Amino acid sequence: MPQSSFSTSFRVTWVDTDAAGVVHYSNYFRFFERAEEEFYRHLGFDFTNFREMGLWFPRVEAFCQYKKPARYGDLLVVEVGVEELKEKSAKLNFKVMKKENADLLALGHLVIVAVDKQTEHATRIPVDIATKLRLFMKQIL
Amino acid sequence: MPQSSFSTSFRVTWVDTDAAGVVHYSNYFRFFERAEEEFYRHLGFDFTNFREMGLWFPRVEAFCQYKKPARYGDLLVVEVGVEELKEKSAKLNFKVMKKENADLLALGHLVIVAVDKQTEHATRIPVDIATKLRLFMKQIL
Amino acid sequence: MPQSSFSTSFRVTWVDTDAAGVVHYSNYFRFFERAEEEFYRHLGFDFTNFREMGLWFPRVEAFCQYKKPARYGDLLVVEVGVEELKEKSAKLNFKVMKKENADLLALGHLVIVAVDKQTEHATRIPVDIATKLRLFMKQIL
Amino acid sequence: MPQSSFSTSFRVTWVDTDAAGVVHYSNYFRFFERAEEEFYRHLGFDFTNFREMGLWFPRVEAFCQYKKPARYGDLLVVEVGVEELKEKSAKLNFKVMKKENADLLALGHLVIVAVDKQTEHATRIPVDIATKLRLFMKQIL
Repeated sequence: MPQSSFSTSFRVTWVDTDAAGVVHYSNYFRFFERAEEEFYRHLGFDFTNFREMGLWFPRVEAFCQYKKPARYGDLLVVEVGVEELKEKSAKLNFKVMKKENADLLALGHLVIVAVDKQTEHATRIPVDIATKLRLFMKQIL
Repeated sequence: MPQSSFSTSFRVTWVDTDAAGVVHYSNYFRFFERAEEEFYRHLGFDFTNFREMGLWFPRVEAFCQYKKPARYGDLLVVEVGVEELKEKSAKLNFKVMKKENADLLALGHLVIVAVDKQTEHATRIPVDIATKLRLFMKQIL
Repeated sequence: MPQSSFSTSFRVTWVDTDAAGVVHYSNYFRFFERAEEEFYRHLGFDFTNFREMGLWFPRVEAFCQYKKPARYGDLLVVEVGVEELKEKSAKLNFKVMKKENADLLALGHLVIVAVDKQTEHATRIPVDIATKLRLFMKQIL
Repeated sequence: MPQSSFSTSFRVTWVDTDAAGVVHYSNYFRFFERAEEEFYRHLGFDFTNFREMGLWFPRVEAFCQYKKPARYGDLLVVEVGVEELKEKSAKLNFKVMKKENADLLALGHLVIVAVDKQTEHATRIPVDIATKLRLFMKQIL
């Protein structure tokens, strides 16, 4: 049975917070991206590889639901999964939890599209990338 | 006929961009919030007033669809409307356009909830705020 | 007598603050840069022009002294002056004040160097840029 | 012989970069602070403890010299040392290096002051904190 999610862990820093004493809502999207970057690195490629292939993976959609606030110093666990994989796009989902007590803090997703840097049009996700991403798709029973 | 949207305008700064040469996707949420702040100021209240009332308006949902990239120096127009107004929550929608050519760059929304700072539970949006927000609801024909 | 400073004004946004309820110290450098960008625009050029000339103006030094905290909603005035102008570099200084009462919040400087994008070496600041910057040098009596 | 520096390591993320393809200059101050936070955690206290003591450590000065640009994906090493320790303030210095080749990317410092949250005046750095910080002072031969 293939692995279905990847997770990474990091701490909330002071600059992540705002005057309400909690993490600013826009920073969860930085957390998603940071987990995404680690996920790609785990799969053996990064944004630099993509550029060398003449590819770019802009986001076309970003979403987050906030359940409980994260605070300075909290150790977070961010889980990444692949929710959908199409020919030219993928939907990654994210789950942000507080490590200490496994509290769910936020849920969200990003939709990314493979774009050819020359033509600036959507293009196929390279086979080796698609193959690796498929391993992280949620299991359908 | 009531007014149905508010808009504000500002420029993309260098720090908003990333190494792809375009505005980083998380910064559109900063743009939404900045427009939201100007919107509240236009309505005659700000986050400081809310705090004095013992209220807090955390976001419970944030969403953005990216249509075209914004670049350094672009003059943006951000339009704010009220999509839904419930007893304890409101859904604000946002439209980011490039002023020069009215190109649509991004669309999104925020769902905010009124929270009593003491009890930390959702509470009614104060009548005067609800009344003002209602003026900016999209017209239903 | 030449003009000796340029100033611009903008408001502290919520995302600028941190859990201490004040503007995060790193954001003053965003304020400096924003004022710098407006200053260049006022002089008739921007970062985009520089790139077209094959030039780049990286910072080699940044400094800030914090006098009083800025808070959410404060209307700031940022003053920009040219402290030093050398063949290949310039030192810009910045003063951040609270508009309401003219309180001095922060003082600082940036040292920028003209770099040729091809050779990646320091190069002369183009004459027209130097001429314009000279108008904003502090008067020495 | 006491230990004279602490170091931590992390990667440049995409959002740290700007349209010049390098880390935005203001983000080095985020790197300094992140290293500072890890340093305090290593010493056994964090910003939360400070707050419980009724103390606050605002920055009164921040400085950075930029030597070489950091880029997306670079693994950084940030070294923290204590340059000066006075009754009410401390000067921490920072060195940012690229792990791969030990290239020096940036040097800088922060001056922090102990402030009593009640009186809002500078106050003595608590003895246990001062004692721990002293272990990280640069060796004077």
